[in-house]
Amino acid sequence: MVKINSNYLKLKAGYLFPEIGRRVRQFSETHPQAKIVRLGIGDVSQPLPQAVVKAGQQGFEDMLNSKTFHGYGPEQGYDFLREEIARQDYKSRGAPIDADEIFISDGSKCDTGNFQELFSVDSVIAIPDPVYPVYLDTNVMAGRTDVIDASGRYGKIVYLDSCEDQGFLPEIPDFAVDVIYLCFPNNPTGVVATHAYLKEWVDYALRHQALILFDAAYEAFITDPSLPRSIYEIDGARECAVEFRSFSKTAGFTGTRCAFTVVPKSLMGQDENGTPVSLHALWNRRQSTKFNGVSYPVQKAALACYSQEGKAQIKEIISYYQRNARTISTELKRLGYEVFGGEHAPYIWLKTPKGMSSWEFFDHLLNQAHVVGTPGSGFGKCGEGFFRLSALGHYVDVQEALQRLARL
Amino acid sequence: MVKINSNYLKLKAGYLFPEIGRRVRQFSETHPQAKIVRLGIGDVSQPLPQAVVKAGQQGFEDMLNSKTFHGYGPEQGYDFLREEIARQDYKSRGAPIDADEIFISDGSKCDTGNFQELFSVDSVIAIPDPVYPVYLDTNVMAGRTDVIDASGRYGKIVYLDSCEDQGFLPEIPDFAVDVIYLCFPNNPTGVVATHAYLKEWVDYALRHQALILFDAAYEAFITDPSLPRSIYEIDGARECAVEFRSFSKTAGFTGTRCAFTVVPKSLMGQDENGTPVSLHALWNRRQSTKFNGVSYPVQKAALACYSQEGKAQIKEIISYYQRNARTISTELKRLGYEVFGGEHAPYIWLKTPKGMSSWEFFDHLLNQAHVVGTPGSGFGKCGEGFFRLSALGHYVDVQEALQRLARL
Repeated sequence: MVKINSNYLKLKAGYLFPEIGRRVRQFSETHPQAKIVRLGIGDVSQPLPQAVVKAGQQGFEDMLNSKTFHGYGPEQGYDFLREEIARQDYKSRGAPIDADEIFISDGSKCDTGNFQELFSVDSVIAIPDPVYPVYLDTNVMAGRTDVIDASGRYGKIVYLDSCEDQGFLPEIPDFAVDVIYLCFPNNPTGVVATHAYLKEWVDYALRHQALILFDAAYEAFITDPSLPRSIYEIDGARECAVEFRSFSKTAGFTGTRCAFTVVPKSLMGQDENGTPVSLHALWNRRQSTKFNGVSYPVQKAALACYSQEGKAQIKEIISYYQRNARTISTELKRLGYEVFGGEHAPYIWLKTPKGMSSWEFFDHLLNQAHVVGTPGSGFGKCGEGFFRLSALGHYVDVQEALQRLARL
Repeated sequence: MVKINSNYLKLKAGYLFPEIGRRVRQFSETHPQAKIVRLGIGDVSQPLPQAVVKAGQQGFEDMLNSKTFHGYGPEQGYDFLREEIARQDYKSRGAPIDADEIFISDGSKCDTGNFQELFSVDSVIAIPDPVYPVYLDTNVMAGRTDVIDASGRYGKIVYLDSCEDQGFLPEIPDFAVDVIYLCFPNNPTGVVATHAYLKEWVDYALRHQALILFDAAYEAFITDPSLPRSIYEIDGARECAVEFRSFSKTAGFTGTRCAFTVVPKSLMGQDENGTPVSLHALWNRRQSTKFNGVSYPVQKAALACYSQEGKAQIKEIISYYQRNARTISTELKRLGYEVFGGEHAPYIWLKTPKGMSSWEFFDHLLNQAHVVGTPGSGFGKCGEGFFRLSALGHYVDVQEALQRLARL
């Protein structure tokens, strides 16, 4: 019988979102009358922009005619999309990224999960705590960790504590690591990185020849124009950073699926003899061998995000979520909660009251207010005692949830 | 500097299709007048069926309205599609597959490439020769091979020779292996497997507790209704086989991207202590962690392949390609070539004349007839002296290519 990849068995059984689902189902079964309001999983609620839908439909229309039909596309994505991204997302902000350094994909979850394949199994990986669980889980599956200790942490991983007294910003280690995952605006804390703070990381990476994997999936929510939206706005980042971006939260593509990853040609790893190897070439080989490009109609739809019409419609959607975030933040503060995030991100991070654990507060909210959020401890040890609310829902649900919280 | 996954460096540099591209480009530059006819890469040429386009457009339309909008879908695919597949592709043919054993994906290349992640690095892998290169390459990248020997073969891999005197059917070994890749109808030889032949493989797998990874991407081209379209038409296959299917060649989805993988719940691997572990559960965990499901409009489009209208339109497209295949086959035989395949597959496999090597014949065809095909040796050592022509092009191009071959 084939021996399995035993690293899979090291994964924690009670994955965050299935466990939430289990508790909500159990509650629903015993309380069939309760109308549950969900501010948990970070899915979007607003429809796709009209310009995007129109372009996607036109993409399908093109497939009807032999002359405009598209078969296998480039594994790296169509130039029409890569060029617009390079121009509008990067060059316009002074970030020196070329179209052929951009790889279109069907999701940042795939890309952040797959990118570690390029590294040797003994690479030292640093991961913030709390953070989006995929960075850690995919390294567990690849065999870069030992078993879990009593505190729930995996051996061999360097955890970058991002606690309240650190302003929820991952602490920069005073020793060398090989790879660092960063996520700004952060999921789950909603905290954003300043230029100065990112500069410290870039300097660290250059000093130690480390690689930063920068997840910028929530950059569209940054309201302060002086804050960096891309790590490539920091000098030197082309020599030490990969960036992941997505249309999911920007333009409502969670069900439509399009994202991209930037791998500058100047990025290098090394082989066993210390010879430099281009990470761009390796990722290109990985994608060419295991991926066949993103659906043509979907890439056409994504392209519409860069039209005047598309941009205006996206701005409206983001404003809608930002109003949600402000409303949650303001009302929770009025109710006496300690609240973080929400200003440059669609996530509100709150301190559980009366020293409750994250899961105690989850059960309390579910049972008393029929409101579902996400326990902070699900994102790591440093998330314990915190709770995430998502601003990506419907405004009426946000209002309803807040009224119920006020009555608690 | 991060150490890279050194297994990537074991990959052959001159990958088949880029090398073809290089030679064609070079020829074009020196012969700018030549009108090149391409029967090389297996991309489709016919537009999407109208029913598929309409359904894809309606899928996008749904995304415009809050009530019908779809955010994150199930990583495993929507039930509407999984249920139709289980019913029409499997149960209708007596193959006992349930909807929740089907995982919708964005391509068989991804799935056949990713599935090996579930196995330990020391698993013994058997791969036919010649065959689609992705099975081998992804195992090289995962570290399951030693370096290449002088004949171009990787150490540790069990090559299943499928030469002419074996009827191009992979030879069943007389010793145990852990995993066997099979592809029927075959790419590149176009050979199809009978019920009796597949039964031998299933018996082998059950006897040795081996796992078969069965690639059925070309099943739509099987013309004889008595031939198996799925490995699950063979008794016992639920206990030893995974099956990969795609809408790419069936319904022209090479640029639209949808496929699926069947992992029966009865399939087991074992952990280091010999305890059985469900491969269905492992693949589910893999997909849930590293994949976010296929685009909703694309799944709606794929669903239309199972409507009466969609099925009729697909039948027409397949007939078009089958006429191409018959035309190529008949004419080549008339010209004195030894020809195989083409009857139940869109590929014609021909013996190069006068003992030419595959690449010599490639250059000969390109230079003398301005026709591009695929050298058989690119699919493995046993492909040497053979050549693949694809029947997935336009009929006029097929006619033109054959006229030029007749003039050679």
